[in-house]
Amino acid sequence: MWDRLFLLSSDRGTSLQQQIRQRLVSAILEGQLGAESPLPSGRRLADQLGVARNTVVFAYQQLVEEGYLIPRQRSGYFVNPEILKGRVGSPCPHEQNAAASTAWSDRLTFRPSSQRNIVKPIDWQRYTYPFIYGQFDPALFPTNEWRECCMRVLSVMEIRDWAQDMIARDDESLVEQIRTRVLPRRGVFASPDEIVVTMGAQQALHLVAELLISERTTIGIENPGYPDARNIFASRRARLVPLPVDEDGLRADTNLSPLDYLYVTPSHQCPTTVTIPLERREALLALADKQDLVLVEDDYESQNTFSDTPVAALKSLDRSDRVIYVGSLSKTFAPGLRLGYVVAPAELIAELRALRRLTIRHPASFIQRCFALFLSLGHYDALLRRLARAYNERAQVISEAIALHLPDTTHPPIRGGSSCWLRGPDRLDARALARVAQERGVLIEPGDVFFMADRPPHNYFRLGFSSIPAQNIEPGIALLGACIRETAQT
Amino acid sequence: MWDRLFLLSSDRGTSLQQQIRQRLVSAILEGQLGAESPLPSGRRLADQLGVARNTVVFAYQQLVEEGYLIPRQRSGYFVNPEILKGRVGSPCPHEQNAAASTAWSDRLTFRPSSQRNIVKPIDWQRYTYPFIYGQFDPALFPTNEWRECCMRVLSVMEIRDWAQDMIARDDESLVEQIRTRVLPRRGVFASPDEIVVTMGAQQALHLVAELLISERTTIGIENPGYPDARNIFASRRARLVPLPVDEDGLRADTNLSPLDYLYVTPSHQCPTTVTIPLERREALLALADKQDLVLVEDDYESQNTFSDTPVAALKSLDRSDRVIYVGSLSKTFAPGLRLGYVVAPAELIAELRALRRLTIRHPASFIQRCFALFLSLGHYDALLRRLARAYNERAQVISEAIALHLPDTTHPPIRGGSSCWLRGPDRLDARALARVAQERGVLIEPGDVFFMADRPPHNYFRLGFSSIPAQNIEPGIALLGACIRETAQT
Repeated sequence: MWDRLFLLSSDRGTSLQQQIRQRLVSAILEGQLGAESPLPSGRRLADQLGVARNTVVFAYQQLVEEGYLIPRQRSGYFVNPEILKGRVGSPCPHEQNAAASTAWSDRLTFRPSSQRNIVKPIDWQRYTYPFIYGQFDPALFPTNEWRECCMRVLSVMEIRDWAQDMIARDDESLVEQIRTRVLPRRGVFASPDEIVVTMGAQQALHLVAELLISERTTIGIENPGYPDARNIFASRRARLVPLPVDEDGLRADTNLSPLDYLYVTPSHQCPTTVTIPLERREALLALADKQDLVLVEDDYESQNTFSDTPVAALKSLDRSDRVIYVGSLSKTFAPGLRLGYVVAPAELIAELRALRRLTIRHPASFIQRCFALFLSLGHYDALLRRLARAYNERAQVISEAIALHLPDTTHPPIRGGSSCWLRGPDRLDARALARVAQERGVLIEPGDVFFMADRPPHNYFRLGFSSIPAQNIEPGIALLGACIRETAQT
Repeated sequence: MWDRLFLLSSDRGTSLQQQIRQRLVSAILEGQLGAESPLPSGRRLADQLGVARNTVVFAYQQLVEEGYLIPRQRSGYFVNPEILKGRVGSPCPHEQNAAASTAWSDRLTFRPSSQRNIVKPIDWQRYTYPFIYGQFDPALFPTNEWRECCMRVLSVMEIRDWAQDMIARDDESLVEQIRTRVLPRRGVFASPDEIVVTMGAQQALHLVAELLISERTTIGIENPGYPDARNIFASRRARLVPLPVDEDGLRADTNLSPLDYLYVTPSHQCPTTVTIPLERREALLALADKQDLVLVEDDYESQNTFSDTPVAALKSLDRSDRVIYVGSLSKTFAPGLRLGYVVAPAELIAELRALRRLTIRHPASFIQRCFALFLSLGHYDALLRRLARAYNERAQVISEAIALHLPDTTHPPIRGGSSCWLRGPDRLDARALARVAQERGVLIEPGDVFFMADRPPHNYFRLGFSSIPAQNIEPGIALLGACIRETAQT
């Protein structure tokens, strides 16, 4: 039995001792090893498993400390019956009564699963040519720097701070770092009560929408634009007005008078990546003042700029407190950490904070504290610099490869960000292309999902380059070119 | 200048080398040390600061690696001008234009800050007698165990998994642990597609409400009951029906026919701590079947049970898939980690997951992975056992102290959980009492906020014992008794 219980492996960095503990705990809690069962001696189990005797002994000792095993003098280790208390007894399996079940579809206020979203394969990291957007590059991950921060936050003194329920608060050191380190990069100066931390820009937009947008609200969005923002506003049943985008981003000469809100991505417009120049920003703000319009500025990809002197955020030019600023923090290197924030007038932040309390209370304070340290030790700024350099290099490589291998496509020049927005020939079906390319190990993102339209154009697609090594770009684009020629023939 | 820049301290576990780096990074990014500024030699700075020369040298080297400093042969270290690029220039301070600002209060869909909530002092850890609920005890925190898990999740292989944007997914190993390790304790058996991970029970309830509750919905809630649940349902403009609670919890003989939903805390009712017995659970489920009623079971405090054979969850008795089960994970030892989950039919979980994607995408995958490991190594079950033992001891101490020092109060017997619900004499004003007690270092929670009523009773209060050491309980209750006598006289 003992050798069947243990199938030790040396992969994934799990120590043998930890694996032995995991298997024993699982056998005890799942009932394979009953209360009072004797365990083999350390020497015998070690021989059977082919590991050092101490490995087994340490595992046993740890399990004694945690209450899973009891040592008895001269007779060895036994399963502690105490550990199984406090549980409901084994259930008598119930007959399910389908007749009495409820009709869930009649109960839904709306059906979030039916929204159109960007879809990426779960296993994108296995592909050789992942031209996807919004993921990270393991090779650029600041492993040692992030570890240094986590270690420090695991000290006993720090635990006292972050283990507690913060209710509505944020980690003060993180807010301070956002205020003094992150926002000044964008020309934005805010006091602590004008900032709230969120679970990424996603929650920032959702909180703003839940607080301010209803079925009586009209909101302008860029078209093509960011699908998540569109879906969030749509879920509030707002009236959405799609607005045109040109090579300088959202056009300011459009009639904006019927709007209550305008959602805009001025830094690198999603998905076209173009930047709104300063004059157009001033014009947008003047219009907003005149028409009592509130701007929601999603400072999308502002971190990834190739320019030494980027354009200031709308928020930094806002004289009448009518810009709600949304930023990302963790997206650049670990989107899975889910950290973003909102900057807005204190009156609004107080309500957003109360609303966040109602929805999730707060983003995990452990992560907030680690990130604050990551910022204060200078790791964040150093990382942004490394990323900008790497992305700039990739942008040049991909531009040249596109010119060479995708001659029938056009795209705005890449001046920052981590993606390229391509328009193919009118007859191109980007969804079909994506399927064919995926079979060859090339992942691309079809562009139809970015359009708000009953029949969105099908000849656009996006190529992200945040997760693909520079040397794979040219061969990947060459393969994609072959796929385009192939799909054109069928 | 250099000695003023550095005010090193040896507290909070920050190494001197880290502090030197922090100060230099901050001086560089905030402009006190301009581009190309020379730094003092390692030896000179070390002498000035009274630290070892190597400490300074290592700090400098790290800053060179990160791009903050440039070493030049024979002339020392200089500030790298590159690090300051990619920023907006210094702003010209704008005149604020108050006349053009918008009236935010007219724009709010509702005012979350006006909801009645439980309020605890931010600095509760400084009080000698913190009888507050829902916080943790630093002395019982599993420091080494949690560290072990974090360290392993910081390995390069693990980072590849958790650093990525999971979009709508959860960490599979956490779902597996919830399914096989956590839920069977409560008699609940679920498949992976019947579980979604949330930011604590708070988000679990909020997602359920956002998906299912509208102004056309009628929902029954316990009275007194959990204020956060009441606030969540109220924010959806649902019709709330307060239902009576007796010594066996929510009464099942009430007329439930007008209800669409019923929110209930069967394990340890919030705030009375009483448990619904098995027969009443069966009666509730039968009623639900008969009236096509959906039960939202918040399995509040089920982890903290003093009984060896706790009552099975409603969900485990549910034959017609009409119980939505909400659980906490991190609350027991680190509520700041914010992990909870929902168990419900797969059809509903798919929609909840899509809705979670829309609101936050997912709880940080780093925390999910750490917690999965914490469960699989057996630390979680061992911790629950330690906590149950500690809380059981405290429950006995507090019961005796109350009998001795608060003779005019009554409370349900404490059979689990981590708090006691007291009813004082009719004339008692628990808010006034809380204020007086706080000045003596005793924190209690006034009970009015738990009642849904225009004029809630003012003579109830809650004493939590999850964060107060056993030896402080009796003196704290004695002090509280003195405060009651005092306030009665005024």
